[in-house]
Amino acid sequence: MITVVLLGAGNVAIHLYKAFKSSDAVTLIQWYNRSYSAISSYANAVETTDDLSQIKAADIYILAISDDSITKLSKDLPFENRLVAHTSGSVSIHDLDKKNQRAVFYPVQTFSKGADLDFSAIPICIEVTEKSNLQFMKGLAEALGCTPYRITTEQRQTIHLSAVFVNNFTNQLYRIAHEISDAKSINFDILKPLILETAKKVQDMSPYMAQTGPAKRNDKKTIRRHLKQIENEAHKAIYELLTASIKKTHGVSTVPNNQRKTKDKTGH
Amino acid sequence: MITVVLLGAGNVAIHLYKAFKSSDAVTLIQWYNRSYSAISSYANAVETTDDLSQIKAADIYILAISDDSITKLSKDLPFENRLVAHTSGSVSIHDLDKKNQRAVFYPVQTFSKGADLDFSAIPICIEVTEKSNLQFMKGLAEALGCTPYRITTEQRQTIHLSAVFVNNFTNQLYRIAHEISDAKSINFDILKPLILETAKKVQDMSPYMAQTGPAKRNDKKTIRRHLKQIENEAHKAIYELLTASIKKTHGVSTVPNNQRKTKDKTGH
Repeated sequence: MITVVLLGAGNVAIHLYKAFKSSDAVTLIQWYNRSYSAISSYANAVETTDDLSQIKAADIYILAISDDSITKLSKDLPFENRLVAHTSGSVSIHDLDKKNQRAVFYPVQTFSKGADLDFSAIPICIEVTEKSNLQFMKGLAEALGCTPYRITTEQRQTIHLSAVFVNNFTNQLYRIAHEISDAKSINFDILKPLILETAKKVQDMSPYMAQTGPAKRNDKKTIRRHLKQIENEAHKAIYELLTASIKKTHGVSTVPNNQRKTKDKTGH
Repeated sequence: MITVVLLGAGNVAIHLYKAFKSSDAVTLIQWYNRSYSAISSYANAVETTDDLSQIKAADIYILAISDDSITKLSKDLPFENRLVAHTSGSVSIHDLDKKNQRAVFYPVQTFSKGADLDFSAIPICIEVTEKSNLQFMKGLAEALGCTPYRITTEQRQTIHLSAVFVNNFTNQLYRIAHEISDAKSINFDILKPLILETAKKVQDMSPYMAQTGPAKRNDKKTIRRHLKQIENEAHKAIYELLTASIKKTHGVSTVPNNQRKTKDKTGH
């Protein structure tokens, strides 16, 4: 049985709380948060505290707190030579105070307060300062049904950057489509199955292979008409930049229009 | 029972073929394609032909062919005053020859040869020139388990544009993340659950509400570090433009960093 003390009460912490509570291989010993009100409603299900001096012994202390608070809280911990991990995608493992053994336990997923999420199958990126803790950290990920990946700090920061592209930037493209369609009184529901299928497709196929559309087939007529339709200059700039990016990826910018294949064509 | 003749053999046509064949409310009378080899392997399951003069009587003729071929094939049809529909997101309904009754049957989805797709639950955008055909067209969509939406030509072209944002451009962001992570020997599998969850989130929540990340919370330190990490200038330009777009949407550009909330924070 792995014993855990959880620190923090943000979105990641709340999802970790649920995952720890539902795992047979983990005992959540205690939940700490600086502000007690955020965790008080859980007091019947787990021991809760806002007093660092009351923190109990456990195999691992998980700091699921904001990036800016990690260094200070790790310094304030009233013990030494235990295993302490943070969950950040970007903070260095060395920002944890070195009086304890250090690790990173970074779940690559987006956590929202409202959204119910199956924690299993989430990739967990792991770093350790003491190699002897590696198996333990992997075991903790597996106890939650997650897949552990040992990575370097540089790789983690690259994953964090990539996550901004596939999560934040992708979501902003959804938002732009929402704005464009709203302006013509179009129900956004019409686009939802396409959004889902686009994400499903790259689960089994590379994004390169999955690409379709006017940019890939260098369909200048459609691109021109789309640019004419877009009223917002910022949206136009995004359309142009991503169209150029697709063309570059697929090496189509120099292929004359009349030589393009029509076989691969889809609805857009 | 609705009787259908299908014309064309691209990705949309093949998915429509499967959907028609599996619907109890539709009889696929015949499948036409200019090049017979593309449909010859289906000859045991449905009557096939490459000869327009042999086309049979049916309630509707569906032209699932490339945009550029719609006008010509609709002219070449050897009959009049029957119902003829195309499946394009961008071609005008008036590009169909007016000797027949005209309609549009545009499925808002991405169709690939390899990917197996559940046709049901796909939104079908419908236009008609004769109002009397509207119920029939809706019935055809429903016979496939799809949701029909009556839209105008302008709305359809806006949906087509929006689809480029949520499908082609989103897929290109996946591709960029693939390139960035490949360069650091990171397994792309690590990003797949995040890609799927990002798409799932906006099924129940607006993209505006679903947004998280450094741009939304105006986390200048992380944005600066990300820009330093990106080696490709074109990727940097996309990062900057989409970051600016998110900031504009969420009105954060003028909020000083020290006043931002940390409560909504997630991993990226």
